[in-house]
Amino acid sequence: MRVVDLILRKRDGGELSREEIDFFVRGYARGEIPDYQASALAMAVLFRGMSSTEISALTESMMRSGEVLDLSELPGPKVDKHSTGGVGDKTSLVLGPLAAACGVFVPMISGRGLGHTGGTLDKLESIPGFRVHLSLAEFRTVLARCGLALIGPTPEIAPADRKLYALRDVTATVESLPLIAASIMSKKMAEGIDALVLDVKSGDGAFLGSLEQSRELARTMIAIARGMGRKVEALVTAMDQPLGRTVGNALEVAECIETLKGRGPSDLESLSIELAARMVHLSAGIALDVARGRVRGALGSGAGLEKLREVIELQGGDPRVCDDPSLLPRTSETVVVRADRDGRVTRLGARAIGRAAMILGAGRETVDGRIEPAVGFVFHKKVGDPVARNEPIVTVHSGSAERLERALAGLRGSIVVGPEAPATGPLVLDRLA
Amino acid sequence: MRVVDLILRKRDGGELSREEIDFFVRGYARGEIPDYQASALAMAVLFRGMSSTEISALTESMMRSGEVLDLSELPGPKVDKHSTGGVGDKTSLVLGPLAAACGVFVPMISGRGLGHTGGTLDKLESIPGFRVHLSLAEFRTVLARCGLALIGPTPEIAPADRKLYALRDVTATVESLPLIAASIMSKKMAEGIDALVLDVKSGDGAFLGSLEQSRELARTMIAIARGMGRKVEALVTAMDQPLGRTVGNALEVAECIETLKGRGPSDLESLSIELAARMVHLSAGIALDVARGRVRGALGSGAGLEKLREVIELQGGDPRVCDDPSLLPRTSETVVVRADRDGRVTRLGARAIGRAAMILGAGRETVDGRIEPAVGFVFHKKVGDPVARNEPIVTVHSGSAERLERALAGLRGSIVVGPEAPATGPLVLDRLA
Repeated sequence: MRVVDLILRKRDGGELSREEIDFFVRGYARGEIPDYQASALAMAVLFRGMSSTEISALTESMMRSGEVLDLSELPGPKVDKHSTGGVGDKTSLVLGPLAAACGVFVPMISGRGLGHTGGTLDKLESIPGFRVHLSLAEFRTVLARCGLALIGPTPEIAPADRKLYALRDVTATVESLPLIAASIMSKKMAEGIDALVLDVKSGDGAFLGSLEQSRELARTMIAIARGMGRKVEALVTAMDQPLGRTVGNALEVAECIETLKGRGPSDLESLSIELAARMVHLSAGIALDVARGRVRGALGSGAGLEKLREVIELQGGDPRVCDDPSLLPRTSETVVVRADRDGRVTRLGARAIGRAAMILGAGRETVDGRIEPAVGFVFHKKVGDPVARNEPIVTVHSGSAERLERALAGLRGSIVVGPEAPATGPLVLDRLA
Repeated sequence: MRVVDLILRKRDGGELSREEIDFFVRGYARGEIPDYQASALAMAVLFRGMSSTEISALTESMMRSGEVLDLSELPGPKVDKHSTGGVGDKTSLVLGPLAAACGVFVPMISGRGLGHTGGTLDKLESIPGFRVHLSLAEFRTVLARCGLALIGPTPEIAPADRKLYALRDVTATVESLPLIAASIMSKKMAEGIDALVLDVKSGDGAFLGSLEQSRELARTMIAIARGMGRKVEALVTAMDQPLGRTVGNALEVAECIETLKGRGPSDLESLSIELAARMVHLSAGIALDVARGRVRGALGSGAGLEKLREVIELQGGDPRVCDDPSLLPRTSETVVVRADRDGRVTRLGARAIGRAAMILGAGRETVDGRIEPAVGFVFHKKVGDPVARNEPIVTVHSGSAERLERALAGLRGSIVVGPEAPATGPLVLDRLA
């Protein structure tokens, strides 16, 4: 078997067999197949696509390139959630504790933010002392003790995906639906979970803009998970304005704590509850309404907040942040952006806000960029809210003055105040299973 | 400027500027841009194509990555011919000496055969002692002394193309018309020529099968040459059956010598005369009919053969091969393939014959494959010729028995004898300028 023949076939619109894909993934992971053939193949896939059989084969081969966790010794269902990424998308830190408080195990391996989207790991690392890099043995221990563990990618999980993703990032081959789906699922399927709830974002701030593309990605991931014997469902959710009121790592952690105290913004609370309920429903076989009730109960009783406190402590973080958010990093400066007219907020463009946050230091442009944990935005208004001239719309928490100027320019461009409230749709746009 | 942004733009169908293409070519030649980005860009170009401005920029940047010969001290026009490659395509060894005998300078830098097509260098190397690897200084000396020099690629000429071509070969990105055209022309334009005649093959044995693709390649190369101030024209010529009666390196050299003695097959003779006449016409500004007369004169007088003898001697070869072809390498074994019925030869499939010759050892499957100079085919019949059952169609000159069996299987499949002569078209299908 020669790699050049596989590239040629894919380039010309043909299909690769499971054996051929496995040959490629193994050879590439071992360093026997060079990067320049892998990037040419990735570009050919970007243009030609992949059949569902090819996508499943790629996912399985990448998953098997590393360790596949066996959590069968844990006495209960194992379930995770994956979001395709958005702006202010912080549900993991709310739904993970809530689901764990309802008695399911949540082994969550998350990623970092890139470009305009945030990442769970960056948020967690804003908690003083919190360790996201646990060994797999530590991960199991934390999970067994509190039902929830929140870590970053480990070298043992899907190393072929890790290598291929880094290559795609520098060869303009990221935006391929089959490659995106296989990359996500190769890691999730290695987590030892029974069930997976997908939150596929759609809209301006999502990775894929159109609803149809988001649906297609959801269908593709569902097919992979089902083909591997996992329970799975997907919500397609709106990502046109930031979720909740904050964008920026420490600010988002504080907002999650508030939400677990029952004082969070309604969009973040309702989406977190819905996703957590579906995790419980899907993995434990409990009726959805019953599951929703349990999750709401865990929120109301404070059991969810206790889970968060517990996992922070087990992973080396300072659990007192749950009581005193001033222990989280804070900037010395804040700047308020005010409305320039009376009216209604008609647009808070999520992508531009995400980019402005990145410029401010809340995110990174390249994978090795550094994060400023304290910087970010707090929105006092959401789309549809009435606003008076000079009334604050957003408070910017900022470090460097140079970055602030550039971020403010982008931020101001993302905010539109108009005469009338725009038509707004539901947060959950579709459900696929 | 970031390479990944250039790949992204090309991937999405955009155009790259001259500066961007130059940035890529320089960076790649210097090793600052890695192979994996170059192969991803090549694949994106394969799918998206390039504008004529982009192709010219790529050609010029690759040409300028190395030395560009200045032959202005030579007292006469400088002209070369380039063929896109075929089976039994040996015109260079006939037209080069003929054109030089007519007083123009022919600085010919040729390539090796690959796949089913032959290469001038491999043919020349079957002449005992002949050195194709001259320094550029030696090349100039030979050219100045006899008006003709025949060498292989040197490290100084278009090194960026050399590197990119090797990469394309292993990443399934060879078959891109813009990349093919830029690769050819970056080397030809570095030769210090005033004029170039292109022989673009079309048909079963050509690199590009369809007449329209061949025309498009011709037009693309003409635009590049004209944009760089060179006189240029192209003949599109048929490559459905092998040109002449031989395929295989030493056998083809012997056939060229016979042709320069006026005893060659009519298709090889007429195409060589036509191409040589156009070289003289185009570079020296002599009317085409007059040029044809001069070339025929050089053939009839033996002046062309004397030029070949001269260049062989100057490049270290044994010039006695011009009188005694038995000094060329010969196989110990020959096998005759005979007609299995009475009729007419209706097909000698050039591509399959080229592949059979490659399997026999006359060509190479990969760039580092080894050549058997003596092996090959001598066709006793051409398409349209009457043939009786058991009459010889082709004599196979063979070394290894194992290779012979595989080559014979392919060869037999390429020959069709039918009841009636097929309709045959002209050898020159089109002329573009």
